[in-house]
Amino acid sequence: MSDTLTYKLLRTHLVSGDLAPGSDIVVSPDQILIEDATGTMTAMQFEMLGVDRIDVPLAVMYVDHNVLQIDDKNMQDHHYLRTFCERYGLHYSPAGHGISHYIHLERFVRPGHLLLGADSHTSMAGAVGMFALGAGGLEVAVAMAGYGFEFPCPRVIGVELTGRLRDAVEPKDVVLELLRRYDVRGGRGSVFEFFGPGVSTLTTSGRATIANMIVETGATTAVFPSDEETAAWLTTQGRPQEFVPLAADPDAEYDENITIDLASVVPLIAIPHSPGNVIPVAELPDTPVVQVCVGSSVNSAYEDLATVAAALKGKAVHPRVQLTVTPGSRQILKIVIESGVYQDLMESGARMLEPICGPCVGIGQAPLQGRPSLRTFNRNFPGRSGTAEDTVFLCSPSTAAASALAGRIVDPSGRPPLQLLPPSAADVAMHDIHITDVLPDAERRAVEVFTGPNLVPPPLAGPLPDQLETRILVTVGDDISTGDMAPDGAVAMSVWSNIAECAKYMFARIDPDFPTRALDWGGGVIVAGENYGQGSSREHAALAPVHLGVRVIAARSYARIHRRNLIAVGVVPLLRVDDRDFEQGTSIGFADLHSALREEQTTVIAHVGPERDVVIFGLDLTAGERKVLLDGGLLAQIRSGGRHPVRPAAPNHDGRAFDESSVAVTT
Amino acid sequence: MSDTLTYKLLRTHLVSGDLAPGSDIVVSPDQILIEDATGTMTAMQFEMLGVDRIDVPLAVMYVDHNVLQIDDKNMQDHHYLRTFCERYGLHYSPAGHGISHYIHLERFVRPGHLLLGADSHTSMAGAVGMFALGAGGLEVAVAMAGYGFEFPCPRVIGVELTGRLRDAVEPKDVVLELLRRYDVRGGRGSVFEFFGPGVSTLTTSGRATIANMIVETGATTAVFPSDEETAAWLTTQGRPQEFVPLAADPDAEYDENITIDLASVVPLIAIPHSPGNVIPVAELPDTPVVQVCVGSSVNSAYEDLATVAAALKGKAVHPRVQLTVTPGSRQILKIVIESGVYQDLMESGARMLEPICGPCVGIGQAPLQGRPSLRTFNRNFPGRSGTAEDTVFLCSPSTAAASALAGRIVDPSGRPPLQLLPPSAADVAMHDIHITDVLPDAERRAVEVFTGPNLVPPPLAGPLPDQLETRILVTVGDDISTGDMAPDGAVAMSVWSNIAECAKYMFARIDPDFPTRALDWGGGVIVAGENYGQGSSREHAALAPVHLGVRVIAARSYARIHRRNLIAVGVVPLLRVDDRDFEQGTSIGFADLHSALREEQTTVIAHVGPERDVVIFGLDLTAGERKVLLDGGLLAQIRSGGRHPVRPAAPNHDGRAFDESSVAVTT
Repeated sequence: MSDTLTYKLLRTHLVSGDLAPGSDIVVSPDQILIEDATGTMTAMQFEMLGVDRIDVPLAVMYVDHNVLQIDDKNMQDHHYLRTFCERYGLHYSPAGHGISHYIHLERFVRPGHLLLGADSHTSMAGAVGMFALGAGGLEVAVAMAGYGFEFPCPRVIGVELTGRLRDAVEPKDVVLELLRRYDVRGGRGSVFEFFGPGVSTLTTSGRATIANMIVETGATTAVFPSDEETAAWLTTQGRPQEFVPLAADPDAEYDENITIDLASVVPLIAIPHSPGNVIPVAELPDTPVVQVCVGSSVNSAYEDLATVAAALKGKAVHPRVQLTVTPGSRQILKIVIESGVYQDLMESGARMLEPICGPCVGIGQAPLQGRPSLRTFNRNFPGRSGTAEDTVFLCSPSTAAASALAGRIVDPSGRPPLQLLPPSAADVAMHDIHITDVLPDAERRAVEVFTGPNLVPPPLAGPLPDQLETRILVTVGDDISTGDMAPDGAVAMSVWSNIAECAKYMFARIDPDFPTRALDWGGGVIVAGENYGQGSSREHAALAPVHLGVRVIAARSYARIHRRNLIAVGVVPLLRVDDRDFEQGTSIGFADLHSALREEQTTVIAHVGPERDVVIFGLDLTAGERKVLLDGGLLAQIRSGGRHPVRPAAPNHDGRAFDESSVAVTT
Repeated sequence: MSDTLTYKLLRTHLVSGDLAPGSDIVVSPDQILIEDATGTMTAMQFEMLGVDRIDVPLAVMYVDHNVLQIDDKNMQDHHYLRTFCERYGLHYSPAGHGISHYIHLERFVRPGHLLLGADSHTSMAGAVGMFALGAGGLEVAVAMAGYGFEFPCPRVIGVELTGRLRDAVEPKDVVLELLRRYDVRGGRGSVFEFFGPGVSTLTTSGRATIANMIVETGATTAVFPSDEETAAWLTTQGRPQEFVPLAADPDAEYDENITIDLASVVPLIAIPHSPGNVIPVAELPDTPVVQVCVGSSVNSAYEDLATVAAALKGKAVHPRVQLTVTPGSRQILKIVIESGVYQDLMESGARMLEPICGPCVGIGQAPLQGRPSLRTFNRNFPGRSGTAEDTVFLCSPSTAAASALAGRIVDPSGRPPLQLLPPSAADVAMHDIHITDVLPDAERRAVEVFTGPNLVPPPLAGPLPDQLETRILVTVGDDISTGDMAPDGAVAMSVWSNIAECAKYMFARIDPDFPTRALDWGGGVIVAGENYGQGSSREHAALAPVHLGVRVIAARSYARIHRRNLIAVGVVPLLRVDDRDFEQGTSIGFADLHSALREEQTTVIAHVGPERDVVIFGLDLTAGERKVLLDGGLLAQIRSGGRHPVRPAAPNHDGRAFDESSVAVTT
């Protein structure tokens, strides 16, 4: 055998397709992760599938995004989600209990399992020998209903880790090093699989930071082996029996091989406005900061907070700096209190926030316009902080702590190592009363699912027109993120359960008139550059255009999840294959879209402008994707019986055992 | 001597006037308290007075309201306030450090002092033998600049406390009992002065709860004696030398005498939508709750949180209930952690919020529309929670805890008493690094005060017209709160530094077209019922009408602070003295407003409607108030030299010693 761990994990979950890079595969997930921001749309679409309960062994709904509750809408969402979970057999983690990825890591990860999540950072669970990836809400709903998950089989980049990180250099710097090498597009179509002697020097939390943020390279996910550290983690979490050692075969062949000598990594920083704009902290010009934020779905672990506390203990945060610290979960909150980390942070002047996503998605703590804000988060896309003209830098907890004291961004090198108190099994018992159990069927079916005016089922695109005479609505540049289409922030995100309201924010930062124009014109075509739709998995970025009448987008390339979201809701993602530019308002017409899709054509012809110039666009779609588009979207396809469950429903899903032997480590 | 403590305190600070109920008096405050929500307007108006620094011994600015930061505006405010404090000689308490009234109680209260605050609940400091009262921002700015504070001398209601509270009955129930007796208007023009053997059974925190919420009766403030409990409190806070025993003379004569037998008080609850709608909890029909909130500027003390924790320890909050708990300050946060209270609350499922005002002013945790939310707060005016159609009940921590467990509102009677860990002096040292010191003059004058687009100096009304031909803009009912004019909530309050934006929310809940109509009509007259402008001291409720062109309001009666705010910004508060109703749009004309004010007339004539009916309004104003109106408002009066400081500026204000002997207790 010469298998990568990635392919071992995929093979044991493969329903159809060939394990060859780029080939279309369908897998059957063991676990589903959903959070509230993308979750209300996921849940409403699940209900539209008309099934009685979930058809996967485990699904958990985490309320961690829209929890500030600046008006009545958030709590409507929470009550809907809680009753939805009760009705359909999901576990429910309430607001304030923690960030999905951290709780999942504590409570539910299992080496060898496949996790699908309605959140791009679901990749975090790859830290423990899982295949974990994010997708749009509709695809997650469909998988949760038992139809499996289809995606292009990734290539695998083997990342050999050697050496050991120096003091004040952290796993965050390792993933920033990968972003320095690959930027925000270089990882597309790939899984980063880690191996080598350096792996054992990294804690599970550290691996999780890397696996979480790997998606900023455009990668599908990251995979770490399941080793002694994994066993220790599961033991600490009270689940030692779920450990199974997993690794690539010794002679595994990767599609690409790279090496990182951990000892050579230096403190790095991503400067505005992309996680790919990485330079050494030491090379940054003098930069005073007004805000430092520690936490989010990366760097909210106990060791992250303890690192910051060790630097701050007995000192005061610089008076011009606002420091916020967010624990990742109630478990972490409890441990930082028991270890004194919380008190040290508080006494140094940190604002100790709830264990929620918070400032990472602009849900509070929006920074001062134009003034540097330094954050240990995973994304610094423009405006994501909640401030339109923000200036956000991304760094490690050590860099954040040193800078919070100095009032300017400084390299933390030379700090002594920490003595950390590991979490103990006794610390985690508290969880049991906070995440709901799945109800017995009789009780489950008696639950009335709450609804409210903020909860509006999404629009259906309807049949794809064969002929389309329309106009160019807007031309946007490269690396436009889904946050530009469905913006972050407490106000904009509070209407994510209502696409008509949500669509009013589409392109708000770059073209505020876009929604009105699109409605006035009865729709049109969006023209974009490279890597269109990078970042978050939010399908609102695809549903908003549907509401606004968009059925065709033409980009130079797409980010994985957004491309699939467009197809799932019935929007055709064309490829721009020549240098031609397009002006807003130019007429554009397509003939025979149906036959182009049906006959597996790889191009489609458009007539553009008053002279009706012939322009050729690429049509790079799998057979399955073509069928979804012809059927008017995935939901319509399933509702019309055009797709079947990938395996028969089992009478007791929670009892489904995973066959570890099929992926057990070979030596 | 037969003086009340109230009059002793006033006499030692009296600059002019007679200590007789209703007589106009001017006092010189020792201390000024400001919070950020009302503070930016206070600060901008202070700057418009053109003085070099504050001219009071102590002033503290607390950032505790607008701290969610859902966009860039809050942090603009914070940076403005911090640099304002540095420039003009105030102490600054940053966001996250705690709620103004709790920190002031810990750090700055001093028996015998007079405290003026730009927040209605400033009365809380009356717990320690101070005279403490709230006022509008402009009047506070003027006092801070050394011009003293003018207000009608209150009558004094003597409240004799006997007996001792039973288990599960709390000081909150005592103030609810007073609200049950006096409702929201019965305390107007009065100070509630407490004495008798029951006083010594109440802790300083408990007295503070009563003194805080007493203003909901319309009262000017509450005064407790300074006794052994006060000495113990100051010792705990590291300031034993500031204790001085203070009490009324034994034969003090009150304007009204009442008695409360503490042993007879039962758990009480204020039902929607007024703190005056008080009934026994036991008489409430079955009421399921979806939210329980503990904290705010009342019931955020250590003993309040410990009470809730004792009830919840080892149990889980009802699964349909969202419980939030807010400590009042970082000191309280530290103590609840050290005592294990925090952990017990967290493990039972409470969302532990930052020490900020938060949900009490709709800054987060807005409840589900139409579903009961039970809160230990001080106000349940409609919409104050951030949810337009809210259903908020007010209660004690014991009632809140029992109800959070039950999922419905229940009487907590019968719970065993608690063993509380008192705060120790060691616990409070942490404060010293968080509240800024006052800078030396040279440094102070070198500070450049930050400003930003959210910070817009308020409108000046300009000269009062002598003749006014206008229309009735709106007719509103009784007990309209200032929250109806300048609503609470994270969005609406984020623009409190910009009156033009703020005015867009005027009467949003009861007449959403009001701002547009007022601007279209070029202003007009607001007609109201009894107790117009109750609640918060926010002068935005007076400045917004000025922006919208309102120069005359006609109500049946006014709340103290709002009435003064109207006069301070140049709006005439007329009294409706007959039964006549007024329809929106009806024409109304005033002739000779100037002579009516100048000649001390007690009525003014208006011509109303197409027939120009003669209608008489009352004009109940002091000589000083008439002059302010004729001068076009207080700011214009001072800027034109129409008022003089009440005492010469001292070279070192912070060194000013208070002469305790002048108010020392007589026995």
